[in-house]
Amino acid sequence: MSLPELCLKKGEDRRLRHGHLWIFSNEVDTAATPLVAFKPGDLAQLLDSKRQPLGVVYVNPASLIAARLLTRDGNAAVNKAFLAKRLKAALQLRQRCYSEPYYRLVYGESDGLPGLVVDRYGDVLAVQASTAGMERLQDDVVAALQDLLQPRAVVLKNTSSLRRMEGLDDYTRLAAGELDGPVEIVENGARFRVDLLGGQKTGWFYDHRDNRRDLAALCKGKRVLDLFSYSGAWGLAAAVQGAKEVVCVDASAAALELVRENAELNGVAGKVQTVTSDVFDYLRQLREAKERFDVVVLDPPALIKRKKDIKAGTEAYYRLNQAALQVLNYDGILASASCSHHLEPAALRDMLRSCARHVDRHVLILKQGGHGADHPVHPAIPETEYLKSFLCHATVSL
Amino acid sequence: MSLPELCLKKGEDRRLRHGHLWIFSNEVDTAATPLVAFKPGDLAQLLDSKRQPLGVVYVNPASLIAARLLTRDGNAAVNKAFLAKRLKAALQLRQRCYSEPYYRLVYGESDGLPGLVVDRYGDVLAVQASTAGMERLQDDVVAALQDLLQPRAVVLKNTSSLRRMEGLDDYTRLAAGELDGPVEIVENGARFRVDLLGGQKTGWFYDHRDNRRDLAALCKGKRVLDLFSYSGAWGLAAAVQGAKEVVCVDASAAALELVRENAELNGVAGKVQTVTSDVFDYLRQLREAKERFDVVVLDPPALIKRKKDIKAGTEAYYRLNQAALQVLNYDGILASASCSHHLEPAALRDMLRSCARHVDRHVLILKQGGHGADHPVHPAIPETEYLKSFLCHATVSL
Repeated sequence: MSLPELCLKKGEDRRLRHGHLWIFSNEVDTAATPLVAFKPGDLAQLLDSKRQPLGVVYVNPASLIAARLLTRDGNAAVNKAFLAKRLKAALQLRQRCYSEPYYRLVYGESDGLPGLVVDRYGDVLAVQASTAGMERLQDDVVAALQDLLQPRAVVLKNTSSLRRMEGLDDYTRLAAGELDGPVEIVENGARFRVDLLGGQKTGWFYDHRDNRRDLAALCKGKRVLDLFSYSGAWGLAAAVQGAKEVVCVDASAAALELVRENAELNGVAGKVQTVTSDVFDYLRQLREAKERFDVVVLDPPALIKRKKDIKAGTEAYYRLNQAALQVLNYDGILASASCSHHLEPAALRDMLRSCARHVDRHVLILKQGGHGADHPVHPAIPETEYLKSFLCHATVSL
Repeated sequence: MSLPELCLKKGEDRRLRHGHLWIFSNEVDTAATPLVAFKPGDLAQLLDSKRQPLGVVYVNPASLIAARLLTRDGNAAVNKAFLAKRLKAALQLRQRCYSEPYYRLVYGESDGLPGLVVDRYGDVLAVQASTAGMERLQDDVVAALQDLLQPRAVVLKNTSSLRRMEGLDDYTRLAAGELDGPVEIVENGARFRVDLLGGQKTGWFYDHRDNRRDLAALCKGKRVLDLFSYSGAWGLAAAVQGAKEVVCVDASAAALELVRENAELNGVAGKVQTVTSDVFDYLRQLREAKERFDVVVLDPPALIKRKKDIKAGTEAYYRLNQAALQVLNYDGILASASCSHHLEPAALRDMLRSCARHVDRHVLILKQGGHGADHPVHPAIPETEYLKSFLCHATVSL
């Protein structure tokens, strides 16, 4: 089966030769190989401007990222066997890093499967395709996962905002097996129920696992405030590791219902409170009431999703961090995180410095963390790195 | 007791107001307050160009860093009580982070004690002053440490290369108590003997503790090569955590003698080999013999000590990383570290990417680490951050 060709303009193979996997639409020699000849998700053989093969890509003429490289072997057949090989390698790496079957099994480009994310919840798998190309391969991915792991169920969680840029609709449905009710995972010794198909359809963010472990280890006997708590991953880990009291704050009543369920599940309901509130409002109330905590966790959802949000988003991060420091006891710990790729680690760190100076505090960075080994960073693809977490000690100004 | 004044030029208070603690000699208003009027280590009250007090500094007219801020309180008395307060705060932070008494107790500027490092080996303390100002305060530091911890011994390990820039000589001597023979520490479950006063005078680098833990967890059943092993901190941790075989390579026969002693101490001597060799030479021999390892640790001493070494040092790091990848099995793990402040984390990461492409390997970053919480980073003082460690998975090129 011979694939249609997609040719690059002169010099536009450079990023790929450095290891990246993306081709932007303005890099394609559309005079030679018009993008409009492709349907979203079509496979093609990629050629450089001298017509030398660079590998096999999938194409989406409707996306700014016009194509993504699946393999550097221009003669490779991209089929179930190809996908199975990649999935097996991804599984072996996770099994080497984790003793329990709860992790991100596939992390897109880093695992050589652009646009694909698979999360493993024991014997249940959640699959997300964020590109038209991966959506076309999805049935083969599910079949290969069934061969590899014999899961009880495979859920398609195709709800990423990236899908819209690819012209894809959102949907969640069962692709294989059966699932009646939430699944349960274990993270850092705490149990959590995760609802993949029910009304709350939560999923789980494995990425902060190591950062939560490091924070929880400092919470023994402490009063902890978990802001943007979602289903309580940080706060409950702290409670299970011996925190005296944990207050989880989130605007979503449904998320806090999960916090309470998970608190019960771990036998720590007696020391976990939930507050349904806008976080900015609640921080103002705490400040006015002169309430203080020993530990504050500030892990907001992405406040900068696109480059144009950088200014407003950075200001929001600033206000949140400053307000968090103001409700922190002297000798307190702040865990400040951001999952915005467009907020550089150095920028968040300098923000922490600046916030602290403005409220007359001295902040030290005890630990800078990123995502865990199940979200490996591809060194040629900066987009595979998005998470930063700073564990800070805040004392009086020296 | 009123202190002499040291005045800054206009605008030169900016870095200090952002949180930094250093004053460079060209920032001093030497017309108003000549540096030559000070002896190395004299205390002074620091004033901005409007003669507003900024705090108390110690001065060294012979150093490029002419003064370092000890406190922002211009009226503070810098004496034993002052030092005791800072030492106590530093201890409390470490006790919060570590359950066992083996850590860097004081990390200079980050702990508000510029130029001072104290390492704790259980009931023995090693003190290092790297500036003339701290050398002058050293007796009070030792006395305050005795009050705080009642150590069995306090060793002055004044052998930092930074001392030469301050016009100070090197020496090692017992400042208090008694010490006959090496001390023993525990790190990540492995025991190590450290000789502070004897012929080998090794000391210990606590900074990589977390990185060694993360690497050791991936070594079970594996064949490990520990390059620049020094006294075996990485390799022996791996051996204790179940590595099948560990080869430690160092140019120093004395360091390898310590490896063998420490291997005995941990009951893993049977699977630990030592090789006295230049690392470049040994890597070439391994490559020629087509020897391969499952895990390679590459943690060289600082190859870039000063800015002028950047080019040659970067090339050396490049050659080492490339050679390390060439003796690594497919599906292997490379731990690549650098303690050179002048090699940026992003530069080392891009180097790993580039090395891998050149030897047709695909490298993923499983974890990027820095120094542990006992070496906290001061967000206003970039010089407090020097260590980077990348835990990489290297497979075949995709």
